[in-house]
Amino acid sequence: MSEAERETPVFDADFRARFETLLAWRRDVRRFRRDPPPEDLVEHLLTLAARAPSVGLSEPWRFVLVESADRRAAVRASFQRCNEAALAGYEGEKAKLYAGLKLSGLEDAPVHLAVFAEEDPDQGAGLGRQTMPETVRYSVVSAIQTLWLAARAHGVGLGWVSILEPEAVARACNAAADWILIGYLCLGYPERESETPELQQAGWEERRAAAARIFRV
Amino acid sequence: MSEAERETPVFDADFRARFETLLAWRRDVRRFRRDPPPEDLVEHLLTLAARAPSVGLSEPWRFVLVESADRRAAVRASFQRCNEAALAGYEGEKAKLYAGLKLSGLEDAPVHLAVFAEEDPDQGAGLGRQTMPETVRYSVVSAIQTLWLAARAHGVGLGWVSILEPEAVARACNAAADWILIGYLCLGYPERESETPELQQAGWEERRAAAARIFRV
Repeated sequence: MSEAERETPVFDADFRARFETLLAWRRDVRRFRRDPPPEDLVEHLLTLAARAPSVGLSEPWRFVLVESADRRAAVRASFQRCNEAALAGYEGEKAKLYAGLKLSGLEDAPVHLAVFAEEDPDQGAGLGRQTMPETVRYSVVSAIQTLWLAARAHGVGLGWVSILEPEAVARACNAAADWILIGYLCLGYPERESETPELQQAGWEERRAAAARIFRV
Repeated sequence: MSEAERETPVFDADFRARFETLLAWRRDVRRFRRDPPPEDLVEHLLTLAARAPSVGLSEPWRFVLVESADRRAAVRASFQRCNEAALAGYEGEKAKLYAGLKLSGLEDAPVHLAVFAEEDPDQGAGLGRQTMPETVRYSVVSAIQTLWLAARAHGVGLGWVSILEPEAVARACNAAADWILIGYLCLGYPERESETPELQQAGWEERRAAAARIFRV
């Protein structure tokens, strides 16, 4: 069917309620089952991620599925270095709490996905990013959040690992010189589901009311 | 109902199909009707945006609804300066094409929303952002993409304006010194809906196949 003939969809109250439930049950997952999601499902999810907005239609996302055991080990080693350094920055009760947190699913997650931004893509011819070039990277973040929601709708959990050295990860992924690491993601079926963020369950931090973040000028 | 008692939701094939339709029909809108969405709907959408993931549960998003005519005029003036400078960077056919594009809905959109990141929030106690502090800004981008989808589900269009001087916009919004502009958003009911990005309709750029962006190492 051609574009012109396709009818504008209507999203009803029932869909919107389910969508809100999806937002509520999207979690940063760190505990994964080892059975992998089907390969074609992972590719389908990446296709959906590429439905994200991008500055100037530049589509700067570059998805690297990290499959080699050696490369994964290099990423885990980077996490361990960074995590020990981070722990050293806390004291007393907060240090004890930090040491008990599980902050990545790098050991168990069946799928490892490094997501990069091509910093200065030809596509889009530079439109929209002369004064705010960071919008290239932001486009890739939009793709990650889209992936996150699509994955959850399929029962697949995603965990974003940011306790890493971006350059070490880029090397481990054989990334091109002009690619910037945006996020290193673990994907797989979660061990359990929850509506409450794991950091809140662990007593590290609590959600605050959104209303307090809204201002009018 | 307490957390423990609440049942894990199941997202079925019907919901997933509608969700994919939502992703397909989310557009960067630049042509708005002037009738405003209800104020409580806008606040509800911001509450949903705050369901986004954030590094260390830091929730660094700060939403500023820009209502004053003078402040809006200052933002429009910044857009005009930047857009003229951007146009001067193109030549020949591309310059002609650029000059004909409508790149913002700043004149007509009933709702103007500036979204900032608080660069070094207390909330979250720094967790997850020692080596990649940009994840604070990325958390706010995730909130914007969440808002974008939630708005579309309610028939509300969103346009992200990035052809702006971030410092001028921050001043116009009376932003705190440690807030960084992530995006300036126009919201309102769109004049028309489409499945095809406006830049593609205008012949500026085309979407590419997502498969070409997937690599394995």
